[in-house]
Amino acid sequence: MIEPGTVWLVGAGPGDPELLTRKAERLIREAGVIFYDALVGGEVLDLATPGTRLVHVGKRSGRHSKDQKTIDRLIVEAALAGERVVRLKGGDPSIFGRATEELEACRAAGVPVRICPGVTAASAAAAGIGASLTLRGLARKLTFVTAHARAGEELSLDWDRLADPEATLAVYMGKAAAPMVSARLIEAGLTGDTPVALVENASLPNERHFHTRLDLLPLAARTALGDGPALILIGQAVSGGSIPAREGAAVSTEMASDS
Amino acid sequence: MIEPGTVWLVGAGPGDPELLTRKAERLIREAGVIFYDALVGGEVLDLATPGTRLVHVGKRSGRHSKDQKTIDRLIVEAALAGERVVRLKGGDPSIFGRATEELEACRAAGVPVRICPGVTAASAAAAGIGASLTLRGLARKLTFVTAHARAGEELSLDWDRLADPEATLAVYMGKAAAPMVSARLIEAGLTGDTPVALVENASLPNERHFHTRLDLLPLAARTALGDGPALILIGQAVSGGSIPAREGAAVSTEMASDS
Repeated sequence: MIEPGTVWLVGAGPGDPELLTRKAERLIREAGVIFYDALVGGEVLDLATPGTRLVHVGKRSGRHSKDQKTIDRLIVEAALAGERVVRLKGGDPSIFGRATEELEACRAAGVPVRICPGVTAASAAAAGIGASLTLRGLARKLTFVTAHARAGEELSLDWDRLADPEATLAVYMGKAAAPMVSARLIEAGLTGDTPVALVENASLPNERHFHTRLDLLPLAARTALGDGPALILIGQAVSGGSIPAREGAAVSTEMASDS
Repeated sequence: MIEPGTVWLVGAGPGDPELLTRKAERLIREAGVIFYDALVGGEVLDLATPGTRLVHVGKRSGRHSKDQKTIDRLIVEAALAGERVVRLKGGDPSIFGRATEELEACRAAGVPVRICPGVTAASAAAAGIGASLTLRGLARKLTFVTAHARAGEELSLDWDRLADPEATLAVYMGKAAAPMVSARLIEAGLTGDTPVALVENASLPNERHFHTRLDLLPLAARTALGDGPALILIGQAVSGGSIPAREGAAVSTEMASDS
């Protein structure tokens, strides 16, 4: 049972409520108050015990939302009031989850804070396309970056290091930055025919994935993707060898289907 | 329900049976036969329905175990015989899980194969030390490598790319290779005082973690770690700022405690 006055930062996983961990499910049931992100779905929140206070603190680009300092203050105040606090985040709190700010706010206030890990979006995206992110010999390294950038803003990433033909690169929140990702990686030495998989709404019923190549990524991102969160996977491991490419097509598409 | 004749590659997560996903739990209950690795614990297997055939196909260095081709053949044969097959792997099947061989064996035999993602060890290790693996500004990139090497064997990793002061590096199976990891990263430009966290048996009751620095990593790995699987986390994000360093100590230790 969650100790009163404790904060748990809980990974809700990639979206499918079945991809919650058993521990996350238990913590959600035990919580007195849940502060949740925009990417956490209603089916996950439905697991909370009736009477639990649910507070939306989501941040999505372009929408009104609570800023980080407000979130820090809310979770600390709830804990200091003796509540069992769950801070529910999409994916894994330790991977692009901005957990540090909340961990530090809790520690500064003397509030015990713990992390429950979750399935990160790249794992769900790999499952969606039925591929491993690592390959012995060919892709012995896996790198995650986030490419959340405002329109026209340059991403300050070290492209020379990222353009590694022996690695798999997973770009979180990379849809808007797709043209830049493609251009910079090719400038830095990756070949235009490097395999790319785009996965939108990974693990959800409306998951869609597309196989393309690095030089065609901007076209694919612009024409094939909808409004959902998308992950870009780049490298030999995601070549989608089992899916026959259509001649002349920039993008090969396969709708997701689950058991 | 799993379709008869289908193979599911299922991530069992880092070890704690509570860190199984709800989907993995369901697939384990529905399986007619489960082929499991050495790192999958008994409490996870206890979730299987009575009567389910449990087949140990674990590989651990130095122990007798079935080779990959035998495992490929066993899962394909079970599926072709119409069984509901679960291939249960530690962590996430797509991250250093050698999923590719089994995916290809199934596809070559016309056997439908799916992946259920899991929580990878690095996420559990980060939760164990109460830290984020990414930090805005300081650690915008996260890289996973595996450093499984036989004694005396040189790891062929691109150390220049890995020695990135703005990244977090997670080294899977890095205990034996710790001296090489430390020496090569420092040669390639990381400073000796780069923060390092060692996490052994992440998420399990006997989890232990240690904070040290890159130049002291070989000593810490040799003196502090036991026989359990260990993960090495390297970079500013894992500085363990909340744990006071003991003066003069090479390693600061904290036993794990869970709610």
